[in-house]
Amino acid sequence: MRSAEMDEKSLNNDRYVYLFDDVARAERNVGGSWDAVRELLGGKGANLGKMASEGLPVPYGFTVTTEACLDYLKQDSISEQVWTSVLDALRKVETRMGKKFGADVDPLLVSCRSGAKFSMPGMMDTLLNTGLTDANVVSLAKATNPRFAYDSYRRLIQGFGAIVMGVADDLFEEQLKTYKAKAGYESDLDMTVDDWKAIVSIYRTILKEQTGSDLPQNPLVQMKMAITAVFSSWNSERARAYRNATGIPHELGTACNIQSMVFGNMGDTSCTGVAFTRNPTTGENRMFGDFLPNAQGEDVVAGIRSCFNVHELKGRFAQAYEELLRVGNNLEQVFRNMQDIEFTVQEGKLFMLQTRDGKRTARAQVRIAKDMVREGLISKEEAVKRVQTGDVDVLLMPQLDEREMEEARRKSLMLASGVNASPGGAVGQVALDSKTAEELHSQGKDVILVRQFTKPDDVPGFFASKGVLTAEGGATSHAAVVARQFGIPCICSASTIVIDTEKRCFTTAQGTVVHEGDVISLNASVGEVFQGPISTVDANFEHEEDLQMILDWSDEIAAENYTRNNKKMRGLKVFSNGDSGVDSAKARAFGAVGIGLCRTEHMFFGSERLPLMRKFILSQDTKQRAAALDDLLPIQTADFEAIYRAMSGFPVIIRLLDPPLHEFLPDRDALVSSVAKMEVSSNGLRRQLEETRELLAQVESLHESNPMMGLRGVRVSILYPELIKMQVKAIIGAACNVRREGMSVLPEIMIPLISVSKELEMVRHQCELYADEVLELNNMKDLSYKIGTMIETPRAAVTADEIARSADFFSFGTNDLTQMSFGMSRDDAERRFLQDYVNKNILMKNPFQSLDEKGVGKLVHMATNDGREANPALQIGICGEHGGDPSSIVLCHKMGLDYVSCSPYRIPAARLAAAHACLW
Amino acid sequence: MRSAEMDEKSLNNDRYVYLFDDVARAERNVGGSWDAVRELLGGKGANLGKMASEGLPVPYGFTVTTEACLDYLKQDSISEQVWTSVLDALRKVETRMGKKFGADVDPLLVSCRSGAKFSMPGMMDTLLNTGLTDANVVSLAKATNPRFAYDSYRRLIQGFGAIVMGVADDLFEEQLKTYKAKAGYESDLDMTVDDWKAIVSIYRTILKEQTGSDLPQNPLVQMKMAITAVFSSWNSERARAYRNATGIPHELGTACNIQSMVFGNMGDTSCTGVAFTRNPTTGENRMFGDFLPNAQGEDVVAGIRSCFNVHELKGRFAQAYEELLRVGNNLEQVFRNMQDIEFTVQEGKLFMLQTRDGKRTARAQVRIAKDMVREGLISKEEAVKRVQTGDVDVLLMPQLDEREMEEARRKSLMLASGVNASPGGAVGQVALDSKTAEELHSQGKDVILVRQFTKPDDVPGFFASKGVLTAEGGATSHAAVVARQFGIPCICSASTIVIDTEKRCFTTAQGTVVHEGDVISLNASVGEVFQGPISTVDANFEHEEDLQMILDWSDEIAAENYTRNNKKMRGLKVFSNGDSGVDSAKARAFGAVGIGLCRTEHMFFGSERLPLMRKFILSQDTKQRAAALDDLLPIQTADFEAIYRAMSGFPVIIRLLDPPLHEFLPDRDALVSSVAKMEVSSNGLRRQLEETRELLAQVESLHESNPMMGLRGVRVSILYPELIKMQVKAIIGAACNVRREGMSVLPEIMIPLISVSKELEMVRHQCELYADEVLELNNMKDLSYKIGTMIETPRAAVTADEIARSADFFSFGTNDLTQMSFGMSRDDAERRFLQDYVNKNILMKNPFQSLDEKGVGKLVHMATNDGREANPALQIGICGEHGGDPSSIVLCHKMGLDYVSCSPYRIPAARLAAAHACLW
Repeated sequence: MRSAEMDEKSLNNDRYVYLFDDVARAERNVGGSWDAVRELLGGKGANLGKMASEGLPVPYGFTVTTEACLDYLKQDSISEQVWTSVLDALRKVETRMGKKFGADVDPLLVSCRSGAKFSMPGMMDTLLNTGLTDANVVSLAKATNPRFAYDSYRRLIQGFGAIVMGVADDLFEEQLKTYKAKAGYESDLDMTVDDWKAIVSIYRTILKEQTGSDLPQNPLVQMKMAITAVFSSWNSERARAYRNATGIPHELGTACNIQSMVFGNMGDTSCTGVAFTRNPTTGENRMFGDFLPNAQGEDVVAGIRSCFNVHELKGRFAQAYEELLRVGNNLEQVFRNMQDIEFTVQEGKLFMLQTRDGKRTARAQVRIAKDMVREGLISKEEAVKRVQTGDVDVLLMPQLDEREMEEARRKSLMLASGVNASPGGAVGQVALDSKTAEELHSQGKDVILVRQFTKPDDVPGFFASKGVLTAEGGATSHAAVVARQFGIPCICSASTIVIDTEKRCFTTAQGTVVHEGDVISLNASVGEVFQGPISTVDANFEHEEDLQMILDWSDEIAAENYTRNNKKMRGLKVFSNGDSGVDSAKARAFGAVGIGLCRTEHMFFGSERLPLMRKFILSQDTKQRAAALDDLLPIQTADFEAIYRAMSGFPVIIRLLDPPLHEFLPDRDALVSSVAKMEVSSNGLRRQLEETRELLAQVESLHESNPMMGLRGVRVSILYPELIKMQVKAIIGAACNVRREGMSVLPEIMIPLISVSKELEMVRHQCELYADEVLELNNMKDLSYKIGTMIETPRAAVTADEIARSADFFSFGTNDLTQMSFGMSRDDAERRFLQDYVNKNILMKNPFQSLDEKGVGKLVHMATNDGREANPALQIGICGEHGGDPSSIVLCHKMGLDYVSCSPYRIPAARLAAAHACLW
Repeated sequence: MRSAEMDEKSLNNDRYVYLFDDVARAERNVGGSWDAVRELLGGKGANLGKMASEGLPVPYGFTVTTEACLDYLKQDSISEQVWTSVLDALRKVETRMGKKFGADVDPLLVSCRSGAKFSMPGMMDTLLNTGLTDANVVSLAKATNPRFAYDSYRRLIQGFGAIVMGVADDLFEEQLKTYKAKAGYESDLDMTVDDWKAIVSIYRTILKEQTGSDLPQNPLVQMKMAITAVFSSWNSERARAYRNATGIPHELGTACNIQSMVFGNMGDTSCTGVAFTRNPTTGENRMFGDFLPNAQGEDVVAGIRSCFNVHELKGRFAQAYEELLRVGNNLEQVFRNMQDIEFTVQEGKLFMLQTRDGKRTARAQVRIAKDMVREGLISKEEAVKRVQTGDVDVLLMPQLDEREMEEARRKSLMLASGVNASPGGAVGQVALDSKTAEELHSQGKDVILVRQFTKPDDVPGFFASKGVLTAEGGATSHAAVVARQFGIPCICSASTIVIDTEKRCFTTAQGTVVHEGDVISLNASVGEVFQGPISTVDANFEHEEDLQMILDWSDEIAAENYTRNNKKMRGLKVFSNGDSGVDSAKARAFGAVGIGLCRTEHMFFGSERLPLMRKFILSQDTKQRAAALDDLLPIQTADFEAIYRAMSGFPVIIRLLDPPLHEFLPDRDALVSSVAKMEVSSNGLRRQLEETRELLAQVESLHESNPMMGLRGVRVSILYPELIKMQVKAIIGAACNVRREGMSVLPEIMIPLISVSKELEMVRHQCELYADEVLELNNMKDLSYKIGTMIETPRAAVTADEIARSADFFSFGTNDLTQMSFGMSRDDAERRFLQDYVNKNILMKNPFQSLDEKGVGKLVHMATNDGREANPALQIGICGEHGGDPSSIVLCHKMGLDYVSCSPYRIPAARLAAAHACLW
């Protein structure tokens, strides 16, 4: 009596071991947080405890804590104290179960299972039937049935060998296979008692041969070795590698769960199964799973026999089925999430072996989150939190059919792989240049544009294509950026393909030659190129009602006032980048509340426009130049009108011409080559040679050694004020026209690449002059417009206070700001060393994809604060690649920006990220 | 009596008018500062007052203040109050002189002269003889001599017409010339009384015709109009333009000095002259000047008659001569500077009309400053303050002979002009490429390298040349930077010359064809190119003893502890950039106390080394690469040894390889062109074509769209750690060798282009590994070395705290930092828009020449503070162009840097600037 009391007491105070129904004590000890309980007991142990505490049918047992694991790892042995606690707990389980662990007669058997805070491959899994010995297997055979007993015993030997002693599992499986083959058996079900006995004997030989020792016949030794194996597996190479890759801390440790065995293989009244409380693919609120009669858990997973749908339990195990549904429901109430459960029915009685939050597809994630709000299980905030931006991306991209791809891979129809620059699936005929792409497209063909790399004048080719494949350039190369902007699947850096534009084909590493016009398929979500067509599965935002619901809630959350630094704040608004009415309509459909970046130069690459632009650039005098601009004016005006119409009531931020002028001219190398060839050949091409030479000279005169830092942005406007005049006339003129149609127009003019405040002052003044002239002419002086600037040079960020005095808004051009802050040209860096930097952990991530918080972020933060101090009315946002990157969006929120702008297809994810930022 | 008392009192309190001997009251009123007195009375008035107060023989008079001028400019008329004050003061002058202003008999005549705080062309100069009228000229003729009286009268009419009424002076001069020609006179001395009377009449006609009015016969009206004209001239177009150009504030205004006339034209006992108290060309302490007997001041300046040396006064005006020497000495004691004086001897008596600090050559400036310290007139600090860094530059450059250049200009032998990128004079034969330059040089010829622009592989050509001329590239282009580094005169941007490398010649705008081998001369201090040879005048630092004295004092001042923010600080040390033993010896001779930047890549461009470097770059595997490096190792080691020897006892900071690798490879365009040509011609060059194609492919693979922000600096070291190994072995190995020779070696390894702290951490670790290996091998583990980094990307500046933890020193690479902060590629910007920006006042100055305080400076300041906070032992300096720019040096001092490093030839000026920074 006194000893029992002491036992009770000692376990009550125990740090290392918790009985399943003792989870409340664990919660108290760690201060009440469920997260801390999971850290102490592991996810599996905590959940088993929770189930037990809720009175659900859990086979009794206990958890040896992660602390015990960490102690073990430090001392390299299970301490006396821990072992004493284990034995104490075991005694309590024996009392509850009315059986003795490993007793010769009617023994208590247990499973030993690892369970860390985060589920993790690479660690020891489950050792079943611990406690069986040569002695008690005989008694078990008598008490239950012999076939079951020896089957169980061989499982222990196999598991102990493979998991605890490190023998290759294949050795056991091979022998079993050979044995069955010899006997002419098709399945384990054909095995007789004697067969299993023979297998037991074979397995013991393997164990002996491989490890020099036999299965310990002392059940406690089995258990101790199992616990030791679980703890050791925390530091296995695979586990460490997995933690490195996923960022799980190495100092967490794993718990070990000791649970009384129940048996699904005790005959026809027993079964075992796994199930999800809802459909993990569609999210439908109906249990989804499989079971196997007369089997142990691993058989279900192993797929040895074909399983039955979980709902077929109804016929065969009616009571257990009812209880399973009830328990499933109960678990969802407890864990407020869809559960992934393991269960066993032993002689008609249901036991729960494990529960955890179930993995699911993006589609299921969204539906379940929405449904659970409707069911009152979770709040809208919780639902929004649960949906990840990656889920949204996946939902919105058409994808290649998985099954067909699998087949294509098997048939070696994969041509190349590259960087998954813009996700989705695309199928079409190869076009090796933009012109061909446009031609094929005009014939109603689906096209895949295949290029060494792309340039701005390839943009028309993008519009004509279903997908883009390049041999060069990384995830933020021109091709990638443009593709993402327009939601075109794109694979970059497929460096093994060799394009031959003369012979109009490309060759793969395997020597396959793909000709222009041949069909290929891009799995751009992953980066695989396939020969021939593969079916695609479409996405359609309008039909994604569940997602739309989640995004509407996201908008609500971002719009709600919340408090930061004692101030009521609004979350980030999501604007869209867009250069046309079509873009803008798409952006509105996706939920953008403004255009944050209209790149006017994209409008100049169209086939009717490029010649005018070249005429402007190559003009010898202002008169010629003015004539070219006069021709461009109505075209630009019409462009802007279309955008304003689509964005009625929302702001439209239009950037003045930004790129260096030579981007509009023919390629320099090609001209050098032409001139050289003409010089050598004597075919009387004198005039043509002279002309080409002259053109080359003009191109040369515009050539720059570092064009990114040359004559572009506001510098072009200052050199050619007539360009500002034309653009402002188009911007404000179009606004007047559309307003006359009865719409609400909110134009904003953005000046790019400021590095000196005077640049902005000067150009702002000119813009106002021209704008007011147009307004006067239209008799619309009350039409208000804003003038702001990009902050994209480090110096602009550092002198933001001065610049803010002439700006109504700042828009951080974090692409250029990152390039200039790092001193890294994006394309050059990604092509030559950036990946190496990430691999070597010099950089944690590519700063062109995710905003660099420490460096570029510091500049953005400084500029935001200095700018607002100088001009409290300043509106501040970000445009460009980072504006669509979820982690960057959270950073923008933290720094107090007003909006982010990203490509139309990234808007849904951005809306979600903006809400996440408010919730975290 | 009562009225006189009141007069006395009213003038004592007068704000607008100060009598000459009343300068003490002016000093009191403005708070005692001489600068403020000069602002109130103008430089001329203040100095006249000072002389009068010192009892020197100044014709009495008074100054109407700049305040009165500002009042006038505001109200557009002389106020009643000012005029009353003028009349009061005039009465006092009349009393003192015992004459009445403009009286009919024995009139008091005055001069009216403008005088602002800063001497300024474009304003009204001097109106002499004010107060003469038709009436009193007769009396004056009787009292003195008639010829003098009518000469004076015609001068008044001419001056009044030209200066007060704005009549073109030529009209008067033409008539006088015609008159003399008709009469057959050679000089004014031939003119008789009647002749002058006739001229008076002719001049009055001109005045009447041109202005419609006659000379006012009321003397007070003459004076009031004269004062009005002086005040108005402050806002003349020329004066405003001059102030805009020189940065003189427009709100200062000018004073007007009214001074009793004395006459140097009263016959042979009278004369007038100008003199410097010391020689303004050589600085010799002996009065230097001219005088003219029987003349008025303007005659001396006008050069109408040839003057006498001032020391000839001794024979003709012995007493006045003695007094002049005494007065000169006295003035130097009062103004503690060499004076530029105007004097008149009237009937044997000396009068001082003006004194001011004298302008002088750089050489005189230095000598006078040194002498005055020796004479106890000024302190060393004052001497150092007076010498400007520009003076030092001028002293140290060989120059073309001025006289010969004048002749060449006259003969139209000037071929072109350009930017004076690196000062000095150079004469030599034209070489159109580096190879030719080296060839001619090896034949003992003087060479001028003439290129479109230069690249790193032209550097050997620089060494072979006396001067460099380029058609492209500004003051900080490659050519300019390298030229300054090596003290080679260089003219850039001579855009009118057209180079034809086929025909081996260049053509000027005038069509002159200059062939390779022809001699030209560069006046690179100004930017002029001459045909044919012009003699040069050499500079020799060792012989510049006066300058050396000044610089020694500068070093003393910079080394003295001074206090800033309550801390004792040392001024800036001056280090030198240098890549060789020769450079380093030069640097020591110029007074550098360390090498702040040794660019190892410059060593790779030598003719024996470039092939090895190319071998390294084009290697297909690490083995080939290692072999190339093995060959380079002994060469680098020897380079470093030479530097250490020259710098024994001083730190040597060696930068690891910095430029992008393609800079070591052949030109891409040339290869493209070659390939194209070979493709067309069918001369069986198949193998050569293949080889060229392959080379082009390799060059292409290293090609970058923005090489400045590509694979260079530390990025190369990280990609090719074997390069670090070779360089560290050479750096530390050489240090061991030289130390064994008994010298003190202080090597410091500098890692370029850090943008992420991990880069430095990683490379530092490798450097330490290799260095310690070498030290162990040499058994010299006590040889200490430092490892630091360039701060040249904005991100490095922003994350300086992290970087400082792995750095022993920072060296700001402000060239790149400026490029990246502004987002401006230096060459592209200077070629295409930077000058336009300066012209339009968008930028006040070229930020590549003078450190941009607001932007780049802010980053430097942040990084300095953050770096020191994280690592208080951090040494901080600056290398590159700004390190030799005086205003940037002052800024570096303000930001608390420890040293600046500049090219050897800029060291003297930098030493001076470092002292200036301590004194201001």
